[in-house]
Amino acid sequence: MVSITKNKLKYIRSLQQKKFRQKYNKFIAEGDKLVLEILQSKRTKIELLVGTADWVQAHASLLRQIGEIIPVSERELKQVSALPTPNQALVIAEMLAPEIIPERVQNDWSLYLQTIQDPGNMGTILRIADWFGIQHVFCSFDSADIYNPKVIQSTMGAFLRTQLIRMPFEELTNRFPDLPTYGAVLHGNSIYTHAFPSKGILVMGNESKGLPKDLQAQLDQLITIPAHRVSGMESLNVGVATGIICAALRKG
Amino acid sequence: MVSITKNKLKYIRSLQQKKFRQKYNKFIAEGDKLVLEILQSKRTKIELLVGTADWVQAHASLLRQIGEIIPVSERELKQVSALPTPNQALVIAEMLAPEIIPERVQNDWSLYLQTIQDPGNMGTILRIADWFGIQHVFCSFDSADIYNPKVIQSTMGAFLRTQLIRMPFEELTNRFPDLPTYGAVLHGNSIYTHAFPSKGILVMGNESKGLPKDLQAQLDQLITIPAHRVSGMESLNVGVATGIICAALRKG
Repeated sequence: MVSITKNKLKYIRSLQQKKFRQKYNKFIAEGDKLVLEILQSKRTKIELLVGTADWVQAHASLLRQIGEIIPVSERELKQVSALPTPNQALVIAEMLAPEIIPERVQNDWSLYLQTIQDPGNMGTILRIADWFGIQHVFCSFDSADIYNPKVIQSTMGAFLRTQLIRMPFEELTNRFPDLPTYGAVLHGNSIYTHAFPSKGILVMGNESKGLPKDLQAQLDQLITIPAHRVSGMESLNVGVATGIICAALRKG
Repeated sequence: MVSITKNKLKYIRSLQQKKFRQKYNKFIAEGDKLVLEILQSKRTKIELLVGTADWVQAHASLLRQIGEIIPVSERELKQVSALPTPNQALVIAEMLAPEIIPERVQNDWSLYLQTIQDPGNMGTILRIADWFGIQHVFCSFDSADIYNPKVIQSTMGAFLRTQLIRMPFEELTNRFPDLPTYGAVLHGNSIYTHAFPSKGILVMGNESKGLPKDLQAQLDQLITIPAHRVSGMESLNVGVATGIICAALRKG
């Protein structure tokens, strides 16, 4: 059993904060299942693994590529963990280097998130993209940080199976000028009756402000999830709305 | 300007906790917009309103039925508020007395939530029900408390426009034996191809465990949102799944 030094403890805890994640280009992920997914996905390099001695022994064959492994007691794991109930293992890994796969973007649906600011919504939308096989999720620079530990934990590994790329919308449409662009708004065409093509870019806007007018003006189609009656509601949660529209895109 | 007594301050703060909400049968709601919605909905009796002096003056005509009104300074409002940025007014109101409107249940879709435990999901589902005009949301006794202040704030008034009723599933089906019952599971019939009737009960299960087998066995139909490919995902967030299925029910 190796002990965790004070400096290492401080380093691990620092990654709960965005500024340190950015400084080191690292993030933290916890729990048996998520750690195994990260190990198996091979999309990132793991710098450090802290796990209970039993867990480390049980998964030894998977751990060969890891820079440093610290087997600990459950009590020690509790010291480094940010979870209310630490679950066997925790890793520090390099942030992913997302890639645009041009032929995939060209022939499929992608998402563009304009100023999605809530980390919970960001995590939910990545799960939706993963569920519906939408591989590319683009977002504006002012959207939430997916490496927020709460997002990482809540996406249940979806961040490993999608390409999340920050770029201005104009850059995306300049690169793929032929793709039809769709924006979700409150007074567009009904998603129930629209015949969606097999590819395109679905643009979702900010939680409270929706899509800016100047962005709407650049889009080919504005679409809406019809409210069943004139309810008092102004909008659905953006994650829910994304799910409903993705289901409509994929139903064909 | 009246001051808030220490006892009153203590009472207001106590309502952040479920045990005191249940003891007093009261809940707390904050913010200009939500407070106005509660006042206008007339679905609950307001015991106490704490508002900035300007706000109280501006809405005097709406405030006649209220037991006690305490106009305060912004600084005082901050003392009683649980919001990071208090917003003009706060009320303590009686918990709603939800009602079953039999002819509505009999002729429309309703939801049944089996052990939905996350307050955020509960709030999201109430917003979805409101959006799609689903008036009755039934839930098991072990589902989350909607009077959790975070839920109340996040539903944006949807709790005022739906009837949320706790009862065992069997009681609901005994009362409405002719309604078709649908359960969301991972390996059911595709929602894309199923012809939904114009009424029924949609049953959604627990966040991690889904619907218990014995409950599944009681249902007429098991339905699924098809994943677009065999992704690594086990499930969509239950709020998102509820939204997607409700859209499918209502598209006809």
